[in-house]
Parts: sequence; structure tokens; C-alpha cells
Amino acid sequence: MKIAILPGDGIGTEIVAEAVKVLKVLDLPLEMETAPVGGAAYEAAGHPLPDSTLQLAKDADAILFGAVGDWKYDKLDRPLRPEQAILGLRKHLGLFANFRPAICYEQLTHASSLKPELVAGLDILIIRELTGDIYFGQPRGRRTAVDGHFPGSEEAFDTMRYSRPEIERIAHVAFQAARKRNKRVTSVDKANVLETFQFWKDVMIEVGAEYPDVELDHMYVDNAAMQLVKAPKRFDVVVTGNMFGDILSDEAAMLTGSIGMLPSASLDKNNKGLYEPSHGSAPDIAGKGIANPLATILSAAMMLKFSLNQPEAAARIEAAVGSVLSQGLRTADIWSEGTQKVGTREMGDAVVAAITTTKTMKG
Amino acid sequence: MKIAILPGDGIGTEIVAEAVKVLKVLDLPLEMETAPVGGAAYEAAGHPLPDSTLQLAKDADAILFGAVGDWKYDKLDRPLRPEQAILGLRKHLGLFANFRPAICYEQLTHASSLKPELVAGLDILIIRELTGDIYFGQPRGRRTAVDGHFPGSEEAFDTMRYSRPEIERIAHVAFQAARKRNKRVTSVDKANVLETFQFWKDVMIEVGAEYPDVELDHMYVDNAAMQLVKAPKRFDVVVTGNMFGDILSDEAAMLTGSIGMLPSASLDKNNKGLYEPSHGSAPDIAGKGIANPLATILSAAMMLKFSLNQPEAAARIEAAVGSVLSQGLRTADIWSEGTQKVGTREMGDAVVAAITTTKTMKG
Ligand SMILES: [Mg+2]
Ligand SMILES: [Mg+2]
Repeated sequence: MKIAILPGDGIGTEIVAEAVKVLKVLDLPLEMETAPVGGAAYEAAGHPLPDSTLQLAKDADAILFGAVGDWKYDKLDRPLRPEQAILGLRKHLGLFANFRPAICYEQLTHASSLKPELVAGLDILIIRELTGDIYFGQPRGRRTAVDGHFPGSEEAFDTMRYSRPEIERIAHVAFQAARKRNKRVTSVDKANVLETFQFWKDVMIEVGAEYPDVELDHMYVDNAAMQLVKAPKRFDVVVTGNMFGDILSDEAAMLTGSIGMLPSASLDKNNKGLYEPSHGSAPDIAGKGIANPLATILSAAMMLKFSLNQPEAAARIEAAVGSVLSQGLRTADIWSEGTQKVGTREMGDAVVAAITTTKTMKG
Repeated sequence: MKIAILPGDGIGTEIVAEAVKVLKVLDLPLEMETAPVGGAAYEAAGHPLPDSTLQLAKDADAILFGAVGDWKYDKLDRPLRPEQAILGLRKHLGLFANFRPAICYEQLTHASSLKPELVAGLDILIIRELTGDIYFGQPRGRRTAVDGHFPGSEEAFDTMRYSRPEIERIAHVAFQAARKRNKRVTSVDKANVLETFQFWKDVMIEVGAEYPDVELDHMYVDNAAMQLVKAPKRFDVVVTGNMFGDILSDEAAMLTGSIGMLPSASLDKNNKGLYEPSHGSAPDIAGKGIANPLATILSAAMMLKFSLNQPEAAARIEAAVGSVLSQGLRTADIWSEGTQKVGTREMGDAVVAAITTTKTMKG
């Protein structure tokens, strides 16, 4: 199994190094090859996604991605900025299904803004469509208004659109994911106001008929934003469009209070995927050895589960992460009184040790 | 000063009656005239917004609105449904600025999903543009895709658009509102992805230059959804478009934990406005005398402040509401152990008594 390792910028190299260390102790036939991406690739090769990096990603069975971006690249032309690397990978690899789990670890419940009883045991999965919707819809631009409230004035516009196959494929992803969980899908739309999302809802219902064992309900996006605050545990799988998913997945991640713990995946139609932490490149703490590697380590676990068909290895990593939390080890971002503050490398070592111990105990 | 009283459906009549009672004890020269709206108007006159009701609203200096809607009208053609009344009033009266305060009363802090220290003393104002954006933008509909990921397939689409004058007028509303508060405006956009909201941001900055005493910052909508959960008190005035405002104002209202307490206003360019509680018609509890009238009573206070230039009378109502909460009086929706449960009418009477007492004490 070939894995492309793309550490990127900022804390990317540090956190990916720990995830690689964890993957190596699993005794799986993994071939890992590393390539630069983002600002690091721009420095090395003049482009945030060099051809050689893209080719490596295409040839791999899965991609483990760190993070890209740094303030020092803010003055570059848009196509040369680090963020273009991730957009380019999504586009060239057809990664249309974004998995954003929002999990509240029992040991970190206090870190949430919400009262403990509302988030203890929270485990929801937001599935965001990633390549369509108003973020990519053409036409868009500026022009002189010919109608509306102020004809003749300057205006800007964008186009929201979804086609039937785009909705069908993300619907299948959501129903299949729900089958592996609690068999409930909430489709979030704004069907009462938007033609695009009335169509979205219609197609969800059609596809849902193929999954009679999965319960489907529908919720308006404004109500979903409320219910996430009021009773987040009512959700199992949430599926929605690119823009609503952008907003709700971040809101849900923040509910957990520990975004440094949250992995993510972006999958194509064959479950090949790119795996990365939900957090960013954090240039302010880069090189200090204090970043939390657990979101990246858990991303590696998602990779084993979704793309490499190694659910047992994934479970071993997840159990090891639970174990180090129970030991009281915390990086600075999740530290609280009474726990032991550790650095990036110590945290990675602790996960490796927890995996090795379990292996020995079982063997 | 002429006030159109439009009680509407469900609990509308009960809660508006209490607000009218409160307005009457203020010794102001208020002429109040009542007309049916929503389902009640459909029953009486065959239309949710009869000409006579619309005319009354047009002739008035301000409108006090209860709530509309009931499941029994769900089968009516869309133009005859109760909700069309509020859309019609907004359109015919040019009510483009929606004020949605999110206030967490000290006495009700425990009702929030958030930890008390994060919401105690919360007082933010979300200003939502109400007549533009993708909710009204043409063209929209279904068609065969000619480009995109799946040319030739069925697709649905909508158009997001904002013209310069639409953004300018809501910007002025926001900066002027901030001047009366803590002089900070956060404009929420998605300028990194959407042409419409890059334009929105550009115009906000231009208009902001006319208000050097007000601090302006910009935040992406996904980050705003997170920051509302993480640190809601960092905000003062939030201004945004129709769709983002729909989502964020509901999220913010839910943060307070007591949506039965939250008023709202929809204003035109001359500060004429329609005032209504943020909650709905709650047909399940209609006629039982248990609905919370405080959001409607506080809407009447907003009306006195924004449209009728009676800030002192508004302050008296607000102080009276604080007083009844401190007395421990609670309707069922905000009741908790150790407080006294009262009905709709008792709550209204208590507010009236608190106003009268203050008057006597001052006189
Ligand atoms: Mg986002
Ligand atoms: Mg809403």
C-alpha cells in the first residue's frame, strides 16, 4: 500500500513525523514516500503543487497531508499561494466527499464551551460535498445590475448549483457511512427558499429509498446551526452542500472544544482519499515542538479505515490515543490543571508505546 | 404616534395583548389599531395579508407583530400561507434591516447550553440584510447543465447577488447602531471564495471610512459560526447578508438559551419598522395562557427606541422586565427549580406593576 506523505508548512512537518512514526510500528506493508507541498513546495520548486508532488499523490493509494500556509506567502499571486495546493489536489483527484467527525473525548469534555452533559460522548460525522455548490459555480463576477432593487448600479454575483449526479454520489457516501454507524442521516438544506436545495432534498429522498435500513430526516440550515448548540448528540451523520458544510463542520468542531484532536478525510468515488487534521498550519507555534500531533495521528487511523481497508490497525491507533489521554498526557492546546504537559514528540512516542504495549499484551 | 397591532396566529394574540397592556400604562400618545394577519387573516378575508391590513401597516409609524403560522395551513398554496404575510410586509414596506439582539439575562444564564462564564452578560446585535442575497436573486430554477462536472444532467441553481446601494444602506445602519453601543462592527463575509462577498467587504470598508470612531473588522462566516460558540462576548454589532444572517442570528439566539426572551426589528431607511418576537407562533401551546410574552414586550420597547424616538419609555420597559426576572417570575419556557411559574397574563401584569411602581417611586 503506497502512501504519499505531504507534510507542508508550519507545524505540518512536526505533526506528520509523529503520524509516520505511529504508522511504522503497525507492521503493515506500507510504502511511504514524502514530497513537498504548499509554501515549502513553492520555495523548493516555485509552485505550491509541483507536478512531481501531484504525480506522487495520483500514484498513491492514500495521501497523508499535514497543513499548508504561512503569513509570509500572503503577498503571492493567488495561484501561487500555499492553499492552492489543497484545492488542486481535491480537483485533480476528484475528492468530492469531505468527512469531518466531531468527537468529544470523555477525557477532554471540560474543554468544550458547552456544558459537559451536552457534549460528553458526542460523536457526529459531518459529510460535506466538496467540489460543487456556490464555491465553484459559474457564472460569477461583477457587472451592472439590469434588474433587482437598484437597476443600473454596480453589483457582484455568484451562482449556486448542484447537478443530480453530484447530489446522488454524496448521498450514497452518506447513507453508506451511516450504515457503519447509527443508521441515521440528517440532510441539511434550505429547501424552503433555494431551488438548489429543494432539488438537493428531492434527490436525497430518492437515493434514501435505496437504503430502507437508514433513517433520513431533513433540517433547514439555520435550524441545524441552532440544534448543534442545543442538542448536538441528536445527530449521527449530517450530509450537506459545500457552503453549509463549511459553516456547520466548523461550528461542530468548535463545540468539542478540542479542534487539535479532530481528523478529516476527503474521498473520491473509489474511497481513495486525502487525510489531514481539521486544524491549520499554526505558523505561530511552528518549530517549537509543542503542536498537538493527535489530529494527524487520528487522520492516519481514518486513512487505514477508509482507504486501506485496515480497520483493525485503525482501531489500535484510536485505542492508543484514548490510552494516552487516560494517562493524563496533554499537549499545550488541550492541557488543563492536573494533567501532564508534553511536547509533540513525547505525545507521538506515547502513542507508539501504547500501541506496542497492547501488541505485547495481546501476543 | 400610530401603531398597527398585528397579533396573527397561535400564541400571537395572547402575547401581543400583554405588550399592548404594557404600552398603555406608559402615558404616551399612542394610537393603536388592530388588524388580522397570517392564518387569521386568511380565515377572515381569504388572504394572509389583506389590503386593509397592509394599508394600516403603511399608514402607521410602527408595527407590532405577534407571530404567524399553523400546521393546519400547510396544505394551502404557497401564496396563501401565513408566512407570506411577513414576506409581503417586508417587501411592501422596504424593511431591509433586520435587528436580532442576542442578550443573555443574568437571571437566565443557566438556561444557556454554554458555560455560564461564556454567556453571562452577553449582549450582541446581529444585523441581517433582509431583502437581497441568494434568497431573492434571479435567475433561479431547474435546467439541463451545459457545463460543470456533469454537463447534460439535470441541475438546479440560484443566484447570489448584492448591489452597491444595498450594501451601503445596511452598512450605514450597522455603523450607526454601533455608535449607540460599543462602537465595534464585525462584517461577516466569505470574501475568500465568493465574488458577492468580496464586493460586500470592499463596500463595508468604504462606508466604514465615514465612521472613523467605529472599529470595523471582518470575519469569514465559518469562523464566525465557531467564534459565536467559543467566545460570543467578543462581538458587539455583527452585520452580514441575508443568508449568513439567517444562520448566525439563529445560532446566536440559541446560545442565550432563552429564545422566548428575544425581540427583533425590521427597519426601512427612515427607521420605520416592524417589531416581533424572535420565536414563532407555537400552535402547540396556543390558547393555554402559558406562552412567554416577554420577547413581545421587549419588541415593543425596541419599537419605542428605534421608530418612535421614546428611549426613556423603552428603558422603563426593559428595567421592568429585569425587575420581574429578579422577582423570580418565570413562564414555563424559562422556568427552573426555585423560581415561580406564572402564565402569560400574570407575567404581563407583573411587568405593568413593575412599571407603575417605578413611576410612583420616581414621582
Ligand atoms: Mg470552514
Ligand atoms: Mg432563520
